Amino acid sequence: MEPLELYILGCGSANPTQKHRPASQVLSTRGKHYMIDCGEGTQNRFARQGLSMKRVGHIFISHAHADHCLGLPGLICTMSLLGRTSQLHVHGPQELEPFLQSALQLFCPNLEFQVIFHVVDTTKHAIIHEDRSVEVWSLPLRHRVPCCGYLFREKPGLPHIRREMIDMYEIPVSQINNIKAGMDWTLPDGTLVPNSKLTTPAAQPRSYAYCSDTAWLPNLAPMVEQVDLLFHEATFDKENEFRAHQTFHSTTLEAAQIAKAARVGRLCIGHYSSRMRDEQQLLAEAQSVFPNTILANEGLKIIL
Amino acid sequence: MEPLELYILGCGSANPTQKHRPASQVLSTRGKHYMIDCGEGTQNRFARQGLSMKRVGHIFISHAHADHCLGLPGLICTMSLLGRTSQLHVHGPQELEPFLQSALQLFCPNLEFQVIFHVVDTTKHAIIHEDRSVEVWSLPLRHRVPCCGYLFREKPGLPHIRREMIDMYEIPVSQINNIKAGMDWTLPDGTLVPNSKLTTPAAQPRSYAYCSDTAWLPNLAPMVEQVDLLFHEATFDKENEFRAHQTFHSTTLEAAQIAKAARVGRLCIGHYSSRMRDEQQLLAEAQSVFPNTILANEGLKIIL
Repeated sequence: MEPLELYILGCGSANPTQKHRPASQVLSTRGKHYMIDCGEGTQNRFARQGLSMKRVGHIFISHAHADHCLGLPGLICTMSLLGRTSQLHVHGPQELEPFLQSALQLFCPNLEFQVIFHVVDTTKHAIIHEDRSVEVWSLPLRHRVPCCGYLFREKPGLPHIRREMIDMYEIPVSQINNIKAGMDWTLPDGTLVPNSKLTTPAAQPRSYAYCSDTAWLPNLAPMVEQVDLLFHEATFDKENEFRAHQTFHSTTLEAAQIAKAARVGRLCIGHYSSRMRDEQQLLAEAQSVFPNTILANEGLKIIL
Repeated sequence: MEPLELYILGCGSANPTQKHRPASQVLSTRGKHYMIDCGEGTQNRFARQGLSMKRVGHIFISHAHADHCLGLPGLICTMSLLGRTSQLHVHGPQELEPFLQSALQLFCPNLEFQVIFHVVDTTKHAIIHEDRSVEVWSLPLRHRVPCCGYLFREKPGLPHIRREMIDMYEIPVSQINNIKAGMDWTLPDGTLVPNSKLTTPAAQPRSYAYCSDTAWLPNLAPMVEQVDLLFHEATFDKENEFRAHQTFHSTTLEAAQIAKAARVGRLCIGHYSSRMRDEQQLLAEAQSVFPNTILANEGLKIIL
């Protein structure tokens, strides 16, 4: 099975620090990169993390705050300099579109590829994109401006052929695709060999949910139920709960409570406030509620 | 005399590399930072180079290409997060204003300080800003879009008091400012002591010219005649002269020819193309025409 990989390009918050970069991630599967958020300077992270801009077909923006989308115009200009011709799809709240259009008009008026903006209704939990590899769902979040997370669900793969059975029953190569698609096989003597003897099931499809930025939102848990990996912002430690509520962000404990309620496989926290000096403390707090928690960090690659 | 300092925050060109950042500089004197250009990610360079955003009152943008101005919205948002209340002046070609306004409306609609945009006529060589410390002149350049450089001329300081003479003639402290302003002194016996005996001349005012991006432009030389430091783009080496001409950029030799014709004190080259791997080669080429040349580099601080 192809790996499903998550790359953390930036996991800081709005206030710049020397330690973190603004929000951006790439989810990669079957040779395609799905970008999530694109803070200022994101384009510089690509080469550094061994990623290719050419493989980005879709960019999903959570909300129109500077630290989540200011890198878009520069990224698109650079794609143009690199000779891109294939369409680029940007998904995000409608507020973003006029800014993006004005930036592209000014900075790259002669783009040789189409940038297609898809308005995402941030109040709905719905499929907003689907291709052969994944389904992408919006996850309504609660922040100071319209904002949503994104849930990626891999499409089920085809079952694996049991080569030894194919050989034994002398099934011709021309029938392999049919067998993969579920067909049984009839022997010359009329005996039926059921498909389950000829194949092993496809690997379980994997899922990833990105939830940033958001106040604590218990309604979120059923929407991300049992995902393999949940990224949930934890801008503040538990001591700064008041500040988190004031700014519609979450604490470590709140992020971990969502992970626990949703029984996810793993939790990754990030979107650290510049006030948070000790990330090990953030990790310990989250792990006190949900042990299988890790810290986001620039350069981190998580294989799902 | 207060130092006049130039900080290189970024000296790459449009195509991102792991080595350089897009264009940005800060010229600092008497506690004030004058910014020149503001490529994507510039805000992150401030803390790294020990500079304070609070001290930036004026930003001068050469032209509306992404690698020279995409850092503006993020910088302004961060100034807002840091609690700025004082006015910020942005000078640049008129194309920039609608983009800047749309970005600020979206990303920081509740700014607690005014951002005042001053349209610069990039076709004129004229004073575009003046305060107690400096005069700033526009320098018309030749690029693919309206573009100008900036020339900073320090205002002359006051002469230095010769303390030993003040003591000898028993001149009261209350008269010091008048003496600094040029007044002679009359002794009780009627003898006139000329001001030149009481003071030494102020240090020579210094000057700095920033010329990027531009095709080779011999007309530029008289405008930057004898400046102490000239920053002139040298996007390409001499071998890539054709490409330089095609893209309205300069080669090392062309930058150095301007420096030589203008008899400047020092030349600093930068705005390196991502194609240029060997900067020592660029330096050697420029020095073959104008020996007192240095290479720009991120983190470099030049004291004038």
